[in-house]
Amino acid sequence: MSRVLGKLASMQSRSVLQVGKIRSGLARRSLSTDQTTQRHPRTIFSGIQPSGIPHLGNYLGALSHWVELQKTAVPGDRLFFSVVDLHALTVQRKKDAPSVRDDAETMTAALLAIGLDPSRCTIFCQSHVAEHLHLAWLLSCITSMGRLNRMTTWKGKLVDARNANSEAEIDESHLNVGLFTYPVLQSADILLYRATHVPVGEDQRQHIELCRDIAQILNARLQESLRPDDYERSAFRSPELLITSYKRILSLRDPNQKMSKSSPDLKSRILLTDSTDEIYQKIRGAVTDSQREITFSPEARPGVSNLLTILAGCTGENVFELAEKFGNAGHGELKKTAMEAVEETMKGPRSEYLRLLKDRTYIQQVLRDGTREARKTAQQTMREITDTLQI
Amino acid sequence: MSRVLGKLASMQSRSVLQVGKIRSGLARRSLSTDQTTQRHPRTIFSGIQPSGIPHLGNYLGALSHWVELQKTAVPGDRLFFSVVDLHALTVQRKKDAPSVRDDAETMTAALLAIGLDPSRCTIFCQSHVAEHLHLAWLLSCITSMGRLNRMTTWKGKLVDARNANSEAEIDESHLNVGLFTYPVLQSADILLYRATHVPVGEDQRQHIELCRDIAQILNARLQESLRPDDYERSAFRSPELLITSYKRILSLRDPNQKMSKSSPDLKSRILLTDSTDEIYQKIRGAVTDSQREITFSPEARPGVSNLLTILAGCTGENVFELAEKFGNAGHGELKKTAMEAVEETMKGPRSEYLRLLKDRTYIQQVLRDGTREARKTAQQTMREITDTLQI
Repeated sequence: MSRVLGKLASMQSRSVLQVGKIRSGLARRSLSTDQTTQRHPRTIFSGIQPSGIPHLGNYLGALSHWVELQKTAVPGDRLFFSVVDLHALTVQRKKDAPSVRDDAETMTAALLAIGLDPSRCTIFCQSHVAEHLHLAWLLSCITSMGRLNRMTTWKGKLVDARNANSEAEIDESHLNVGLFTYPVLQSADILLYRATHVPVGEDQRQHIELCRDIAQILNARLQESLRPDDYERSAFRSPELLITSYKRILSLRDPNQKMSKSSPDLKSRILLTDSTDEIYQKIRGAVTDSQREITFSPEARPGVSNLLTILAGCTGENVFELAEKFGNAGHGELKKTAMEAVEETMKGPRSEYLRLLKDRTYIQQVLRDGTREARKTAQQTMREITDTLQI
Repeated sequence: MSRVLGKLASMQSRSVLQVGKIRSGLARRSLSTDQTTQRHPRTIFSGIQPSGIPHLGNYLGALSHWVELQKTAVPGDRLFFSVVDLHALTVQRKKDAPSVRDDAETMTAALLAIGLDPSRCTIFCQSHVAEHLHLAWLLSCITSMGRLNRMTTWKGKLVDARNANSEAEIDESHLNVGLFTYPVLQSADILLYRATHVPVGEDQRQHIELCRDIAQILNARLQESLRPDDYERSAFRSPELLITSYKRILSLRDPNQKMSKSSPDLKSRILLTDSTDEIYQKIRGAVTDSQREITFSPEARPGVSNLLTILAGCTGENVFELAEKFGNAGHGELKKTAMEAVEETMKGPRSEYLRLLKDRTYIQQVLRDGTREARKTAQQTMREITDTLQI
């Protein structure tokens, strides 16, 4: 997180109250980065669905981590960040929603605004690279039904679909097939680039395990057809899960829910486009509790703990240390510090985002270049698979 | 069937024993063709999996019907015949099988050999047109799990998978996901070309019904976004099933089974490459029964009835009339007539097939041209869908 802020700080000329403290926090943490140790080059793949303006939860949970990965990349590392518009189709779109194409472009603008640099990573739209669905089809022909049925994300959908309280009550018949099969598409997304590391949320752990299993099945098929040394070169490495540090930002209005784009209460989330005033108002109105002392206990005190998580996400500090520092200073003081830190974190990306939205030509050029780059690798992988398996 | 034979007869200079009779059969039947009545232009789509050399069952069951459709086409009709290699991947390939690419080319050679003419129909390979999987993904996001679970083909796979005797015993967990979802891909195959007529076997009836339902769901979405007159132009018409006349050719060795490429007994099927001697031997060795009189009763006398079906398939005659004509002439006479008719039917396509197999450059050119042609329509359909639905 700290490195993200460093990046952001360099993007903006003004500096405010908290910056000194924030920066010192960063410096302390950066000693532990990968840059200080030798390691093998990584190929990183991650995706985000294009569904409106990203909020603080997206930013602290995933996107800021991408920027951090870009910053800590060493020569030889390859980074693929994809706007996964095909995944977005599994969820029915609202009637007044912008087109998926518009959403993909605005999401690309957001990725650039937070500091992703097209000269250091490949930013592209999933649907522009036909190999994603081609590989997904091949993989769906070697993936068992049982494997997908066991996905907890699927079971969750089943439970939600019926407001059921137990798995015994569930009924899948009304859910769409894409919701069932998308983990296979996700595996294709990852394997197409031979990704070694996949930064995703904890809720995606099982999907990465599925991807590892599918990679093994694919490897077993490749091994049957190749000489040992050729196999060594062609085999898929098991992708590793990179869990992000600050993963669960909660709704400001109902801290029992994740911060979400779909909540009808606009005050529940802070958007990348929110003005200073809006940020201040929303954090001021955040639901906490009646206990004066500040402590970090996500189960018992989700509201207060969420503000600490947000603050820590912005400054790179530790939530428990922060809680101790605030002690009896009161909720007002915590909120004041949090709103300033959020504003400091968001203001650079916000102005860059608003600027980029007016420059669609540039965004489209970034996507075209990214598509060309991604397709090179994707086509190479598909050639290797289809040539070896003779399909 | 008769029109196919007419076509074949024109391809070959020699003529043998049965030809006179066969031809007169044709002339009688051709009065009832569509050419004699006014009708709307049709768009026909059908596919065949590339899995080795086609046999007599494929020919009489499906392929000869395609040639018939080409022959009866009127100006404005469009015919798309696809080698559906993506569907072939749902079944695990044997280790010593040729590559899918080779199989696709030899199947194309077979299609040309039996009389399909690339200047009158579009012959192409499914995997060469990326829009098939793109549309399949969109459709899988509007198709319910319940709809696919009800497919009897899927239930059949479930039963087979466990040698189970009832649906209660079945377990889907080991079957691959592609086997479950391929009817959605099949719907995409059809809708991509806005096909109005789909010539397939009776066992595919439910899949065409699925396709009609999916077309309705898609239409409902389109209707929400379009003005009535634009909707009229963009809506998908419900494709109609064209059931082929001579659909079920059985194994010559076990007439309780369909003639199949996968049977280990080579004498159970007649291949397009079989020589005159091989055809004669295989039909001479066909399993019948001990009753002297020739009657057509598929349930009680599958072997004899199968020979009548094969003979009728080759000559265009009626199975019951044929049975009556043979009366007490004996199995030997029926087999003799059948083997001559099969040889007469197959010899033209056989020599053309063997010739074409040596001309891979031509086959590949046919597929390239077909791909270009198919893609034009496929891309147009995808543009209409994605523009209207803003995806």
